[in-house]
Amino acid sequence: MSDFDAAVRTIQFLSVDAVEKANSGHPGTPMALAGITVEIFSRHLRYAPKDPKWPNRDRFVLSCGHASMLLYSTLHLAGYDLSLDDLKAFRQWGSKTAGHPEYGHADGIETTTGPLGQGIGNAVGMAIASKMLAARFNTDTETLFDYRVFCLASDGDVMEGVSMEAASLAGHLRLDNLVVVYDDNHITIDGSTELSFSEDVAKRYEAAGWGTEHVDGHDPAAVRAALDRATARKDRPSLIVARTTIAKGAPTKAGTSSAHGSPLGKAEVEATKKAAGWPLDPFHVAPGATAPFEARVKEVAPIHAAWKKLEAGLTGDRAALWKRFRDKELPSDLLAVLAQATAPSEKATRVLAGVAEQKLAELMPGLVGGSADLAGSTNTTIKGAGDVAPGKFAGRNFHFGIREHGMGAIMNGLALSGFVPFGSTFLIFSDYCRPAIRLSALMHQQVVWVFTHDSVFLGEDGPTHQPIEQLWALRLIPNLHVVRPADALECAAAWAHAASRKNGPTAFALSRQNLPTLERPAGFDPARIQDGAYVLSDAQNPDLVLIASGSEVHVAVQAKKILEGKGKRVRVVSAPCLEAFAELPESARAAVLGKDARRVSIEAGRTPPWHGILGDGGLAIGIDRFGASAPAGKLAEELGLTAERVAAQILAT
Amino acid sequence: MSDFDAAVRTIQFLSVDAVEKANSGHPGTPMALAGITVEIFSRHLRYAPKDPKWPNRDRFVLSCGHASMLLYSTLHLAGYDLSLDDLKAFRQWGSKTAGHPEYGHADGIETTTGPLGQGIGNAVGMAIASKMLAARFNTDTETLFDYRVFCLASDGDVMEGVSMEAASLAGHLRLDNLVVVYDDNHITIDGSTELSFSEDVAKRYEAAGWGTEHVDGHDPAAVRAALDRATARKDRPSLIVARTTIAKGAPTKAGTSSAHGSPLGKAEVEATKKAAGWPLDPFHVAPGATAPFEARVKEVAPIHAAWKKLEAGLTGDRAALWKRFRDKELPSDLLAVLAQATAPSEKATRVLAGVAEQKLAELMPGLVGGSADLAGSTNTTIKGAGDVAPGKFAGRNFHFGIREHGMGAIMNGLALSGFVPFGSTFLIFSDYCRPAIRLSALMHQQVVWVFTHDSVFLGEDGPTHQPIEQLWALRLIPNLHVVRPADALECAAAWAHAASRKNGPTAFALSRQNLPTLERPAGFDPARIQDGAYVLSDAQNPDLVLIASGSEVHVAVQAKKILEGKGKRVRVVSAPCLEAFAELPESARAAVLGKDARRVSIEAGRTPPWHGILGDGGLAIGIDRFGASAPAGKLAEELGLTAERVAAQILAT
Repeated sequence: MSDFDAAVRTIQFLSVDAVEKANSGHPGTPMALAGITVEIFSRHLRYAPKDPKWPNRDRFVLSCGHASMLLYSTLHLAGYDLSLDDLKAFRQWGSKTAGHPEYGHADGIETTTGPLGQGIGNAVGMAIASKMLAARFNTDTETLFDYRVFCLASDGDVMEGVSMEAASLAGHLRLDNLVVVYDDNHITIDGSTELSFSEDVAKRYEAAGWGTEHVDGHDPAAVRAALDRATARKDRPSLIVARTTIAKGAPTKAGTSSAHGSPLGKAEVEATKKAAGWPLDPFHVAPGATAPFEARVKEVAPIHAAWKKLEAGLTGDRAALWKRFRDKELPSDLLAVLAQATAPSEKATRVLAGVAEQKLAELMPGLVGGSADLAGSTNTTIKGAGDVAPGKFAGRNFHFGIREHGMGAIMNGLALSGFVPFGSTFLIFSDYCRPAIRLSALMHQQVVWVFTHDSVFLGEDGPTHQPIEQLWALRLIPNLHVVRPADALECAAAWAHAASRKNGPTAFALSRQNLPTLERPAGFDPARIQDGAYVLSDAQNPDLVLIASGSEVHVAVQAKKILEGKGKRVRVVSAPCLEAFAELPESARAAVLGKDARRVSIEAGRTPPWHGILGDGGLAIGIDRFGASAPAGKLAEELGLTAERVAAQILAT
Repeated sequence: MSDFDAAVRTIQFLSVDAVEKANSGHPGTPMALAGITVEIFSRHLRYAPKDPKWPNRDRFVLSCGHASMLLYSTLHLAGYDLSLDDLKAFRQWGSKTAGHPEYGHADGIETTTGPLGQGIGNAVGMAIASKMLAARFNTDTETLFDYRVFCLASDGDVMEGVSMEAASLAGHLRLDNLVVVYDDNHITIDGSTELSFSEDVAKRYEAAGWGTEHVDGHDPAAVRAALDRATARKDRPSLIVARTTIAKGAPTKAGTSSAHGSPLGKAEVEATKKAAGWPLDPFHVAPGATAPFEARVKEVAPIHAAWKKLEAGLTGDRAALWKRFRDKELPSDLLAVLAQATAPSEKATRVLAGVAEQKLAELMPGLVGGSADLAGSTNTTIKGAGDVAPGKFAGRNFHFGIREHGMGAIMNGLALSGFVPFGSTFLIFSDYCRPAIRLSALMHQQVVWVFTHDSVFLGEDGPTHQPIEQLWALRLIPNLHVVRPADALECAAAWAHAASRKNGPTAFALSRQNLPTLERPAGFDPARIQDGAYVLSDAQNPDLVLIASGSEVHVAVQAKKILEGKGKRVRVVSAPCLEAFAELPESARAAVLGKDARRVSIEAGRTPPWHGILGDGGLAIGIDRFGASAPAGKLAEELGLTAERVAAQILAT
């Protein structure tokens, strides 16, 4: 058996054995794709297992994350810090080898995959990042960045709309550093792909500007030739349609959907091993199985060393830029700097946040992003910076097209490559990209979602465009912070918060409509805003505490005046970020919310989740129905969100 | 001016004037597409404005809902119940003419559109429904159903992944009764489509099995010929790529993105009207403008009359089936019938709900549906009914492919056509189809979402597959009921609830893992389950009320035993549907939740929104972090959701 075959067989059977031991998992795809994976890792991929975060490494993305054992087995053989014991702990609590690859659990896992289609989008983002890094750091004589991205994808990956959105942009941007291998096995969980899928996938990708190859995925020479052609292709990404047999080599289950998501079973495993002349003892590593990887690592070592030398030799502006990019360093007085730049003005928070963003962009070279075709409305374009466009990657502004979900998956790929990406659209369309937002949060990636038109007060576009449940639906995602600022200072604080929050994503909810500037007490410390909620306007021994966010803070301020006219003592709390507030000690929260006063929340969205903050006797004023098409002022009247209506509701209950 | 031109011009200027009057809206696309629309309405569409719900009418779907004035102006001229005053009330509170077309606001609005891509998916669902109705009700000599679907779509519609998913299935199913006109105007909000979109859209649709046409959208003869070819095409849906100029005819704004989403402005309106020789007074209807529609309605009248005669003449099984289908009649003892059919058994609720569904399928001929490639896991296949497949539409089971979002949009189209569709996938992937779920709710459509694998207790697949925030994120959508049953009887009740709920969608959350059967008090009335929450197991003068849903009801039952051993008096409340519960009178809710006892919620998901039900001093036990990959039992231990851990938490606080 050749070393190559030893590697392939070992990966196949390590995968089979680990799934069998866990009594759970997906054996068929690792068996089918082991050959292609070894070919990629032994001849194409540039990597350094002992320096797994080498910035110019080629990326390997397993978009079909259910085939996780394929990745784990390969990383083990390739010399990454992943032991046989780790493989034996597949799918167990606390192990590095989760059911699906989890970013951060082990070296060599480039992204968390499993929700189908996302990996292709991440790969597109990484490929864009490579070109953007090249445009920033390469010179005529020194190439710091030219990494490629190899991605394995399943039927599910190519059927999901998110991948098509990302692939469309990849073709548009002519990402010739991206190779996607599509595992065309004609099998999905429900059976043959003929049940639901008769597309000419290659033609579809060609329509999007990709080059394509067709290959027998089990013919090593053909796979090699196809990968050679794909990596040599200029001006367009490549899709290799690899016809494979799921569970290749399993006597009765090969080519069947039963091999997709369940262990093969003892008898089938034995029969498969016997047919392959493989030892029956589990977790066998064949002699020579690591050799192809060792040879490749040796081959890449000088490239890696040369890169380290280049990096160490950086001087002047390039060195400084690289350090600022890599370390995401920020001024310690960031909030003050952004606040200084964001002059108070009676404008929409979407405008004011855009002003703060301009200043941050000066300070944070890794900040890049764009809009899903709403740049004029979301005000996120970085002024003076060019567009990211075909052949032009020095810019910072993306045109993602009307592809919110693809945008999200690409943003995650950019974040995983060291950028701090932002993406903007209307808040209602956060629903379109929720799976990608969740993955930002799960992977602890610093991603900024700029959602504007954050309430019914966008007005005439009506209920399809008016967020009602979106604010709270976002707040429910673990590790996502939702920031809904009320004026210029809070917008500056919002960006300061997002810029400082390196272990997770932040989502802004910004108004379409103009808002007044809040009056704050003399000596107000803007750092209080970072607490997530703070006393904006107090009263002696208050009997009412009005808690509001964004545009409704101004309603609260007005309502306070009316209520004071009726003899009430009213505190107003501005609460731009409930997640930050929840992280405060109990006593600090109680100091803001008061102890004995009745609490009232005012927010133009769903009310039930507010009650945890309000407590018994509290009143949640908001909107628990879909919106309507009408001018904003009329909506405020009809939906009970004018200061007068709010005050009346408080007094009536 | 010909009558045809009078109609086109009138639609263009009614649209321009209404946008101008509202000072808000999208004039450019109605101007560009008026000609194509008049062509469709005057030569192709079969409709009866005075019988707008005629079941065999052709459907006209404006997927680019922002061009709503195009639809309203056309419906007005075509004789639907939509007056000039209605047009003048465009985008005002309570008017029929909302910013985007809202289903139910006016006759002739076939679906709510605005969120891009959804309309194409709805159109696919309607086209499938036509073929399914034909397979059920046509005979060799009588054609009750053969309606076609015409859909207008914008760049945004074709860029969104949801439309690609739906289009892929449409091609697979060879829907030759579907014609989509793609408004290829090279303009999006951000400017030229060249910024982000260089796909060959026709080629992409060809790859998915569509026939395509290219046409100058402003050449009436060419449009006519293309529509003739498209409607005559057999065995595949048609895409007509119509090259148009946005705001055609506006002197300075034609062909620019400034005409997309803002009024043209007084000066431009005047200049446009002058150039067209059009009266400057707004809302002018040219003589002859209604003639093309009147002629078409007259042409269709005998077809409509013949259909009514056919329907009236139905006899025997066909007549009975049609009545059952149309009226969605159900036995008054539905819950008892389903409960009888769903034998208690220690199985997963995904299995038990599948049993109840089988019985319901016998009773409800309109119940059809399928899975996004997880039929084996979600147990939704209707036994004995065939598949919906190319050329075969008598079946009831769909293979939607790995296209959750497309599935959702198609389900909405099926529901709008009189079917009661269900779609199934894992609960985590509800995130992939949220925009479609929201539209089910907004349109008051009876759609059933069968989400299984409803908690971390799916186990080893890990955090990417484990819902945490999804239960509450769904509960936040207005008019959606979320039902999480705990055993066979509750599964029967879940389907009874969904079947009876004709004014909105219902989503099930079902366990992957087996669950015991609940013991209920003697004489328990199953109708109590329909209250949404009920006392499962009581205590004299309880000092603790444990409120749980789904699999955690069993944890509560076990915890009760432990707590009783510690001297506590414990009531257990099973709460399968909090939305139904919220509709009860306050006193009825208080009777279930108790007044003085401490309330504790137990649910394997996010906790904060529970506090509104628990009140001060309440304890919400759940999961406020992402899950992990491990066997279910281990997860229960580690995440504090065993009965022992739950009891300990209650006693400790």
